Amino acid sequence: MAEGLAQSPLAPDAFPDLPVIDGVRFAAVEAGVRYQGRKDVMLAVLQPGSTVAGVFTRSATRSSNVLDCQAKISGHSDEGAAIIVNSGNSNAFTGKAGDGSVAAICEAVSAATGLPQNRVFTSSTGVIGERLPHDRITSKLGDLVDALDVSGIDGAAEAIMTTDTFPKGACEEVALPDGTVRIAGIAKGSGMIAPDMATMLVYIFTDAQIEQSALQSMVSRLNERTFNCITVDSDTSTSDTLLIGATGASGICADADPAFEQALHRVMLDLAHQVVRDGEGATKFVTVSVTGAASDADARTHALSIANSPLIKTAIAGEDPNWGRVVMAVGKSGAAADRDLLTIRFGDIEVAREGWVAENYREEDGAAYMKNPEIDINVEIGLGTGSATVWTCDLTHGYISINADYRS
Amino acid sequence: MAEGLAQSPLAPDAFPDLPVIDGVRFAAVEAGVRYQGRKDVMLAVLQPGSTVAGVFTRSATRSSNVLDCQAKISGHSDEGAAIIVNSGNSNAFTGKAGDGSVAAICEAVSAATGLPQNRVFTSSTGVIGERLPHDRITSKLGDLVDALDVSGIDGAAEAIMTTDTFPKGACEEVALPDGTVRIAGIAKGSGMIAPDMATMLVYIFTDAQIEQSALQSMVSRLNERTFNCITVDSDTSTSDTLLIGATGASGICADADPAFEQALHRVMLDLAHQVVRDGEGATKFVTVSVTGAASDADARTHALSIANSPLIKTAIAGEDPNWGRVVMAVGKSGAAADRDLLTIRFGDIEVAREGWVAENYREEDGAAYMKNPEIDINVEIGLGTGSATVWTCDLTHGYISINADYRS
Repeated sequence: MAEGLAQSPLAPDAFPDLPVIDGVRFAAVEAGVRYQGRKDVMLAVLQPGSTVAGVFTRSATRSSNVLDCQAKISGHSDEGAAIIVNSGNSNAFTGKAGDGSVAAICEAVSAATGLPQNRVFTSSTGVIGERLPHDRITSKLGDLVDALDVSGIDGAAEAIMTTDTFPKGACEEVALPDGTVRIAGIAKGSGMIAPDMATMLVYIFTDAQIEQSALQSMVSRLNERTFNCITVDSDTSTSDTLLIGATGASGICADADPAFEQALHRVMLDLAHQVVRDGEGATKFVTVSVTGAASDADARTHALSIANSPLIKTAIAGEDPNWGRVVMAVGKSGAAADRDLLTIRFGDIEVAREGWVAENYREEDGAAYMKNPEIDINVEIGLGTGSATVWTCDLTHGYISINADYRS
Repeated sequence: MAEGLAQSPLAPDAFPDLPVIDGVRFAAVEAGVRYQGRKDVMLAVLQPGSTVAGVFTRSATRSSNVLDCQAKISGHSDEGAAIIVNSGNSNAFTGKAGDGSVAAICEAVSAATGLPQNRVFTSSTGVIGERLPHDRITSKLGDLVDALDVSGIDGAAEAIMTTDTFPKGACEEVALPDGTVRIAGIAKGSGMIAPDMATMLVYIFTDAQIEQSALQSMVSRLNERTFNCITVDSDTSTSDTLLIGATGASGICADADPAFEQALHRVMLDLAHQVVRDGEGATKFVTVSVTGAASDADARTHALSIANSPLIKTAIAGEDPNWGRVVMAVGKSGAAADRDLLTIRFGDIEVAREGWVAENYREEDGAAYMKNPEIDINVEIGLGTGSATVWTCDLTHGYISINADYRS
């Protein structure tokens, strides 16, 4: 956590009361990887029989940790699994030494837990390009294993923070025909996605029993509607990682269960929104919905063009109902559009229709709406039935200060 | 010109001494389209026999003016041509009324000059979505025609400014086998490219004699290496326009002449660089060169990913030699890259090599280099022979202030 950053004005009132997920225990310690005086390493150990699935950054320069997780993720094992995460150093762009750090950590976790190395998943987040002092992590493994506790997830949520101004958690209980299962997740942001300090990491746990391939396809599908629909600054981390572990401790199977998938969707969307709410310098939470595009893919292209436009994001920061910039972003996106068919609404206020300012629009209505902390931008393209929704935040002096002034 | 904006620290020392281009006359007036107390409309009239070519925004929501220019640009005529430009109102996203404004202006210019309407080219730059008060322009046509003067280009350069902090001009003289020809151009920026206030407009004139198709192919080709290689904020205007007029008054043919094309390239690159130097809030002029990519197209993708990254642009603003963010931008671009083959240099300083910090790199050297007002970022991908160079500026509090606070 960068010093001196005030909590985001968009933060939830409090960290949620996450339920115990049977079959997984957590610990967090101060290892001094980079930060001093705070927890910076978390360990989660899942019981034998757990399945693990994940989604990862598409960056061509992804970190050793991500490459290692990707190589292991589809493996099957009845021996349980471990997830170990450090903040303060991303171990990204550290050459062959980075591979060595991952191997050293996996070896140490394996020795301390008895799990095979191919069931140890690692993440690192923090400064890029500096050798990870992995000895500081491995030397704490005894303490971590001793501290493992079913109710340790709150400490884990804090240990993974970098420039985050609040820890992020979400949970659901799902009543299935054979009983109730639980889902609890934690995440860290908070630039989307700065490799220095703000990789996005997400860890979700459930006591449901789900086969690995079913879990993987579910999380991949839901990822497209949640974490892949948020953007803070259009930058992509070399380390983005989402891991989900299903311990099966409830004895209740949730393979292909729609109620379970809906609950998991809510958890992932909640965490994704919290990442946006903690976007670097954010003062507004923005939902961009595009309808009437030629295809869903076109709608997504338009929506991301709007959500990533520096001119729109600065206008929102300035509480300026500048719908002209929305027209600009639709025009530049590359997806199909016709200037004279566009309809734009800010919240329920129609600001533009058929290629011009809406007949009854009054600038003072738009200006009043923009003062809300949550802004909805709705664009009807008028060409088809494609739709998409993405979430972002505004671009403020705070973003510049955090990113221009942080490292040096 | 927005009030209160200090001149960019990257501005040239002075506006250049542009030569008279025989065969074209200029005038500029105060029409009060939006701004008061400054010239805001320019008119250029080219003699019979002139050829005109142009390149335009690719935006799907381009303005009526652009659509009208595109419809006319390849037409042939021996009757001369006129270019009329207003600042203060972009006439973009003004529905059918926008088409009407263009028609009214063309009709009035035609009546005042005797030129056919299909030889009148219009541009408008300024606020989007507000009806253009074209009567204020057409009522000044008598004054404009009376004021036409061969040496009026300086006033024209000032009349087209919006958030620009300095007028932009460039020129060349070219010795061809049959004599000397001249090229003079003017441009305005200055966000790349804000539809509100900072559309990019470029007008270039030469007394060389060039066939329209030859002029068009030359300017299209050069545009790919100049104006299409600059970015301030990745946003694309609905109104971007470059027009070039060749009067032929020198009697010297420059069709397919490499010396002429090189001189025109220098003029276009100079103007393009001036647009970047006046990027909203810019304090650093940044050249991004990518070599060793799998193709030229891949190199351009990498270079633009670097040049458009908010994290890199804020790091440059903060004088932070943050090469990790360059790795990130290469990784996210979508073009081919191998983390462990990358070499990155800031100026002559090798900062990263083969996937890690360079052996002899010292952070203090990088930090000292970043204090320069002109920064070169060189990335060797290590995969092939593709190369590209693009230009950009840093992302500062000034950009946020201009764009968050301007309209409302």
